[in-house]
Amino acid sequence: MDTNSGTVAVQNAHAADGLIDRFFQVRAFSEKIVEPLSPEDCVIQSMDDASPIRWHLAHTTWFFETFLLKPSGDYRPFDERFEYLFNSYYNSVGEQYPRGKRGLISRPGLAETLDYRSHVDQAMRSLVEGHDLTDEERQVLEIGIHHEQQHQELMLTDLKHALSCNPLAPVYRDGACEDLDTAVGQSWLEFDPGVVRIGHDGDSFCFDNELPRHRVFLEPFQIADRCVTNREYLEFMEDGGYDRPELWLSLGWTAVNEHGWRSPLYWTKTGSRWSHFTLSGRKPIRLDQPVCHVSYFEADAYARWAGCRLATEAEWEHAVCSQLDDPFSATQRGNWSDELLRSGRCIHPKLSGTDSYCNPQSHYGGIDGDDPDQPPLADAMGNVWEWTSSHYSAYPGYHAPAGALGEYNGKFMCNVFVLKGGSCATPSGHARPTYRNFFAPESRWQFTGIRLARC
Amino acid sequence: MDTNSGTVAVQNAHAADGLIDRFFQVRAFSEKIVEPLSPEDCVIQSMDDASPIRWHLAHTTWFFETFLLKPSGDYRPFDERFEYLFNSYYNSVGEQYPRGKRGLISRPGLAETLDYRSHVDQAMRSLVEGHDLTDEERQVLEIGIHHEQQHQELMLTDLKHALSCNPLAPVYRDGACEDLDTAVGQSWLEFDPGVVRIGHDGDSFCFDNELPRHRVFLEPFQIADRCVTNREYLEFMEDGGYDRPELWLSLGWTAVNEHGWRSPLYWTKTGSRWSHFTLSGRKPIRLDQPVCHVSYFEADAYARWAGCRLATEAEWEHAVCSQLDDPFSATQRGNWSDELLRSGRCIHPKLSGTDSYCNPQSHYGGIDGDDPDQPPLADAMGNVWEWTSSHYSAYPGYHAPAGALGEYNGKFMCNVFVLKGGSCATPSGHARPTYRNFFAPESRWQFTGIRLARC
Amino acid sequence: MDTNSGTVAVQNAHAADGLIDRFFQVRAFSEKIVEPLSPEDCVIQSMDDASPIRWHLAHTTWFFETFLLKPSGDYRPFDERFEYLFNSYYNSVGEQYPRGKRGLISRPGLAETLDYRSHVDQAMRSLVEGHDLTDEERQVLEIGIHHEQQHQELMLTDLKHALSCNPLAPVYRDGACEDLDTAVGQSWLEFDPGVVRIGHDGDSFCFDNELPRHRVFLEPFQIADRCVTNREYLEFMEDGGYDRPELWLSLGWTAVNEHGWRSPLYWTKTGSRWSHFTLSGRKPIRLDQPVCHVSYFEADAYARWAGCRLATEAEWEHAVCSQLDDPFSATQRGNWSDELLRSGRCIHPKLSGTDSYCNPQSHYGGIDGDDPDQPPLADAMGNVWEWTSSHYSAYPGYHAPAGALGEYNGKFMCNVFVLKGGSCATPSGHARPTYRNFFAPESRWQFTGIRLARC
Amino acid sequence: MDTNSGTVAVQNAHAADGLIDRFFQVRAFSEKIVEPLSPEDCVIQSMDDASPIRWHLAHTTWFFETFLLKPSGDYRPFDERFEYLFNSYYNSVGEQYPRGKRGLISRPGLAETLDYRSHVDQAMRSLVEGHDLTDEERQVLEIGIHHEQQHQELMLTDLKHALSCNPLAPVYRDGACEDLDTAVGQSWLEFDPGVVRIGHDGDSFCFDNELPRHRVFLEPFQIADRCVTNREYLEFMEDGGYDRPELWLSLGWTAVNEHGWRSPLYWTKTGSRWSHFTLSGRKPIRLDQPVCHVSYFEADAYARWAGCRLATEAEWEHAVCSQLDDPFSATQRGNWSDELLRSGRCIHPKLSGTDSYCNPQSHYGGIDGDDPDQPPLADAMGNVWEWTSSHYSAYPGYHAPAGALGEYNGKFMCNVFVLKGGSCATPSGHARPTYRNFFAPESRWQFTGIRLARC
Repeated sequence: MDTNSGTVAVQNAHAADGLIDRFFQVRAFSEKIVEPLSPEDCVIQSMDDASPIRWHLAHTTWFFETFLLKPSGDYRPFDERFEYLFNSYYNSVGEQYPRGKRGLISRPGLAETLDYRSHVDQAMRSLVEGHDLTDEERQVLEIGIHHEQQHQELMLTDLKHALSCNPLAPVYRDGACEDLDTAVGQSWLEFDPGVVRIGHDGDSFCFDNELPRHRVFLEPFQIADRCVTNREYLEFMEDGGYDRPELWLSLGWTAVNEHGWRSPLYWTKTGSRWSHFTLSGRKPIRLDQPVCHVSYFEADAYARWAGCRLATEAEWEHAVCSQLDDPFSATQRGNWSDELLRSGRCIHPKLSGTDSYCNPQSHYGGIDGDDPDQPPLADAMGNVWEWTSSHYSAYPGYHAPAGALGEYNGKFMCNVFVLKGGSCATPSGHARPTYRNFFAPESRWQFTGIRLARC
Repeated sequence: MDTNSGTVAVQNAHAADGLIDRFFQVRAFSEKIVEPLSPEDCVIQSMDDASPIRWHLAHTTWFFETFLLKPSGDYRPFDERFEYLFNSYYNSVGEQYPRGKRGLISRPGLAETLDYRSHVDQAMRSLVEGHDLTDEERQVLEIGIHHEQQHQELMLTDLKHALSCNPLAPVYRDGACEDLDTAVGQSWLEFDPGVVRIGHDGDSFCFDNELPRHRVFLEPFQIADRCVTNREYLEFMEDGGYDRPELWLSLGWTAVNEHGWRSPLYWTKTGSRWSHFTLSGRKPIRLDQPVCHVSYFEADAYARWAGCRLATEAEWEHAVCSQLDDPFSATQRGNWSDELLRSGRCIHPKLSGTDSYCNPQSHYGGIDGDDPDQPPLADAMGNVWEWTSSHYSAYPGYHAPAGALGEYNGKFMCNVFVLKGGSCATPSGHARPTYRNFFAPESRWQFTGIRLARC
Repeated sequence: MDTNSGTVAVQNAHAADGLIDRFFQVRAFSEKIVEPLSPEDCVIQSMDDASPIRWHLAHTTWFFETFLLKPSGDYRPFDERFEYLFNSYYNSVGEQYPRGKRGLISRPGLAETLDYRSHVDQAMRSLVEGHDLTDEERQVLEIGIHHEQQHQELMLTDLKHALSCNPLAPVYRDGACEDLDTAVGQSWLEFDPGVVRIGHDGDSFCFDNELPRHRVFLEPFQIADRCVTNREYLEFMEDGGYDRPELWLSLGWTAVNEHGWRSPLYWTKTGSRWSHFTLSGRKPIRLDQPVCHVSYFEADAYARWAGCRLATEAEWEHAVCSQLDDPFSATQRGNWSDELLRSGRCIHPKLSGTDSYCNPQSHYGGIDGDDPDQPPLADAMGNVWEWTSSHYSAYPGYHAPAGALGEYNGKFMCNVFVLKGGSCATPSGHARPTYRNFFAPESRWQFTGIRLARC
Repeated sequence: MDTNSGTVAVQNAHAADGLIDRFFQVRAFSEKIVEPLSPEDCVIQSMDDASPIRWHLAHTTWFFETFLLKPSGDYRPFDERFEYLFNSYYNSVGEQYPRGKRGLISRPGLAETLDYRSHVDQAMRSLVEGHDLTDEERQVLEIGIHHEQQHQELMLTDLKHALSCNPLAPVYRDGACEDLDTAVGQSWLEFDPGVVRIGHDGDSFCFDNELPRHRVFLEPFQIADRCVTNREYLEFMEDGGYDRPELWLSLGWTAVNEHGWRSPLYWTKTGSRWSHFTLSGRKPIRLDQPVCHVSYFEADAYARWAGCRLATEAEWEHAVCSQLDDPFSATQRGNWSDELLRSGRCIHPKLSGTDSYCNPQSHYGGIDGDDPDQPPLADAMGNVWEWTSSHYSAYPGYHAPAGALGEYNGKFMCNVFVLKGGSCATPSGHARPTYRNFFAPESRWQFTGIRLARC
């Protein structure tokens, strides 16, 4: 290695600093999530869609082991057999232990899994201290960090689902929710027709599916300045929302009847009062929190009942980005899970519309620029994932990357809908307005809510 | 009836003439389809997605009875109980007999069902002779005609599926297929970026889901001048297409393994030779026919294998319409089922690319007009339904009509993909380039094929 | 053919006369059953357990073709492909078309199937005229005749089930049921403990599973002189029979909840009145007919509710045989389906207990002989199949015959219960007191009823 | 407490001593089983038929709480909500948490469950010290002890199944198996025909289903002096046992194909060598151990292949009892799980036939007494549960007890077969020759084996 490359190395080490620090911070947060849990809590799996907490802890570790440490050559695996056990769906890496049976694996247990994490963290430290990361390694590292953050959100939502199956309604962690019950008005932001650009741009990290940035024509539309509240959703319920087939997509109506849906997930009616299960135990419904744990079908039916519709992904992204100075950054103000955990509050959405996240100096309004009469758009980042009417599809010119990481996003572009904005279970620094989350239309266990649009 | 209205009636009768004639022609074609069938053939149901032929005959009749005759006041139903029995999915009309059990209904049999048809046809004649149809009645009549044509296609595809379950491989009707086996080259049509309009326009009939005509931005793209052939698809199969997960959507790979797919539907390999089941019995595969009876998953995997992709609905529609003088009309040249039946040929796609359907005088090429260097686009109408990569969603500004007919299209906008162009099982006069057919991505029993695109 | 063999033939014909005559009589009755049916009626299959009528017609024919005509050497099959299509479950004969898909086969249709039957009947005539049947051939012929009679019963019960799925409640054949509603008392026959013999004896035909006749020890028991009536069963229903888990076997309680059972199969309540679907259409419940179309679970729960139990097979057989002069013969008086069809009555059980089938001169009472104080035992043959508490198992010393006919009975000795006595759907000359019918405990579509016992 | 009652208490304590001591010994063994396990091991559920270890620990405790402590009046429940959570199937006690979801309950965890056990044990101590147990209480106590022993066996077999699902093949506890591989001959014990008595008699404990003792007639039979070995079963496998439908019951053949059975449960072939998963990890197959983890279907098919059959329950019980001085006692010599655990051996059957359990002074032979030429009958108690050909049915005169404990046995008398003799997973002092274990014919996760009979 000559001096020249030495210089580069120093620069690179410098440049990498932030990334490595974030690596260890993010890794630490996974363990922070687990702190209040028993070994038993970490091993159960309540449905095929969810995974045991212990599996999330191990799988995110497996990711760094498989895609960074093993290729680096100088790494002794913690246990060779984990490759099979903790592969989620990467066919290029090999066979996978069946997803629906993850709850049958009691060993490695929590303690050993934490040892596995330490082992890999230690090896990661050696890796970054031993040599300058190549560009490819840095890219994988960054993906791995975001990958772990995605699983942190899943840890919270899978845990919530699992605990909710227990008739004892166990408390993950005590914590207050905002409890104001004062109806807040709703206004519309209006947008003129025109060609806009959506998708990610700039130097900051994004997933492959946010690319390429491209042009889209938007016909004129309006979008609500806040999310639908429990108060509003209860009106829909009391107006026979779950009994009127004309409000539902055909598959939605089938789901309503098959699953016996009469309210959002986690809601229970005792006498005339609704309560819901939260990560801080069972609590009364707060009327002005955004409704959450609704499926796409319920979001769509609600919107139809309200004489509106859901926004398309492009409308949502354009509306939100038009209010932000730096729309491509993941450092947006929000109600993020790590901050909630740190402050001791319940991991649950905050009140709807009481706090507009947007920068008052930001651009908003029509496609062509500012409009001082537009209301600020509230709650868009980090409260509830907002269902859009857009099927999750490839952007024009999209190509999945070669190799295993090409299996990350592209292969799921079927029968799922795009959600935008992040939720109270998302860790800060993870989501962006261009971020494309996606779930099947019957999914309800994420913190998913509704924002109305109309044309 | 006074003279005045008499005059109007004459005018109206004149205006309605074409429509009424079409009504009786279309009704007659349903019965023509049934001619070679036994009563037993007409009652079986081979899967939940398909219906017995006898059910199609009755349901299309029920449509006119329910939406035209009963509201007209002066009508004696053939059998009141048919309302329940032959309602497909119209919740506003009432309860429905379970779809998957239509094959359990042996009565009314074929003969009685044909009587039911006569009864309704007779009543329809009285209706149009008795008074001038209102605009609304004319509209329902036109929808009913197109509705029956849709079921005519389903009669042929459901019948094919049902007969294919019989190890005796019964012949619906003898008929030759084109049997040339000479590979035909494939060229690309190129399109520049820009805002285009899609959706229906003009006075001719269209379904609600083709509206409103609206603007879409298309990034530059290329589209193949013909469909993928069996010869090409066999290369994919022989290259391990069905064994390589990296070529498939995740749900597609699940489907491949769950159903054991190794070839398109109806194909069988005996020794080293592939044959397929057709409506004229089992026949050897013709290499240069368009591949058909493939799912969206197979179309998508093939395209990925070929280094291409499927076209979006907007790309397809724009490319095809740009070659036509009258793109909103359903009178396009094609390989339509009624013409095939009349000519005694097998109901099966004709050879790929040997015949460009488009008008040589038509516009084609870039968004901005003609390009004499572009090849003509072949096979687009009336050969195989072409899978697009577009999820079936509402056009901006779409509203489902009020009442039962609002259940026609909008409520199915979930987890299905758009297909364009019509097939050899579609009757002539039914499909248009703006027509939006839709099926679930695992469906294979329609005559569905593949046209490649790339950017 | 020389005189010698001519003489033998005559002798043989003489000896065989009865058997051959019965062959043609029994064959004719299958076609008699079909007379009122349309081709469509004959092709539908309403559940996996049932088969299309057309399939029964063909399969019983296939039996003679496969086991008699083909081995005889000099036979031209009607259609070679029927071997696969109409094999029910004989693994030794070859692969079978999947049972649950028999309703997908529209061809051969009814007419062609009747031709197939004629072809085989003709060949059977040639066979018996051409040479003396060997003992083995005679044996197979006899089994084939009884096999066809079994399928005649299934034709009627499968048809009843299929027609009952049609909301139009079609009538197979008009016919009156006995309609007296006068409660009849019930008495008990008492039996002392001792060793008795059960199983078939003598020269007349029986199935392999009725052998060998063997000794069984019976503790003292009592058996009801008639079957449980609708009147009595309604008391059970009104006493919460279907709501009280303590009355049910564990699997029975699961079945009640899974299927939502609230009454016997085919019963419907309109307002406060119960009616039931019969082969002569929907009719009011007659209170003093024996309850039928109940599962083993319902029979067992009813008996527990009544403070009784079901009889074991040995108890039932001993009690019935003790009242008969010729218990091994199939010519017992009963309410048989061919007689019902001939007389124009509804194929349904006759009133309970109004007619004791037994010969007044017969032996009955204790194991050791007559007891003039015992009441006669009524309804035991040819009214409803009576559930016993006995699991269907091999008799001591039982061996399944070698070859394909060994698959007839023995391989079903698992998870089914023995039923005795024959029903109104059984043709005369088929059942005997030693006859062992068997069905799964959740089956309800046979004419199955309840006779109480206690110890 | 006055002297008088003090005296009685002492007497009673004396009388109860044995029972109370056994209570605490048995309770302690449950905790002994759990010692080598992690909290995670105790919470997983690998199939609907199995339960988490933690559930077994709690449910057996719930039994004493519900049936003894709560009725005693003076008891403060550990947690009222456990009543619902740990009820297995007692409908009379109330609703039950769904069986298949027991693996979703992470709380109470192992530690809290052990506290629950202490709480109940403490209360039990107070109960027995506080007053003389009534006869009914003593009876419930005794049932509770046997109930816990049943669950101890299930803990071991459910654990084995759960660990076997883990690709890491975890070891419950190291321990050697006997490893001699020397074929041992097999002889037949012969029995003359006659009336025998089966069922329990005498003062020692038995379950309701072992009563009443009653008479049965046995035709002459022979029974093997030892169980079928792995060596013999491998011959069956190598002779195409799993490929020959003629050897199987119809439902058995379905199970073979549905589940892809090619060997007993837990067997794996690597190259040409068979190994099996044991509670001490994966080990090579020992040829002369009794084959175990076979279903009834496999036992029956093996017997048919060997030209034999399985014994009936009555034959088995008579043969074994005829060799024992005290057949009604549960203190028979065997290979019991508590002894295996104490001695550090693997919980697995010992070699076949090397050790006849029977008392050389005992009676054996024909029904009428000794026969010095009969070989001793080996392995009958405490090695593998032996499938009999007898369906589990009520003995003549059987009545389920009133109340919740009446749900213990009688309601399962459907579609299960009787197994006799106890296994290496049964704790000592639990099983008797009259003991009637029962499982569905497809069950394989118990230590179930084969003893041949013939007539």
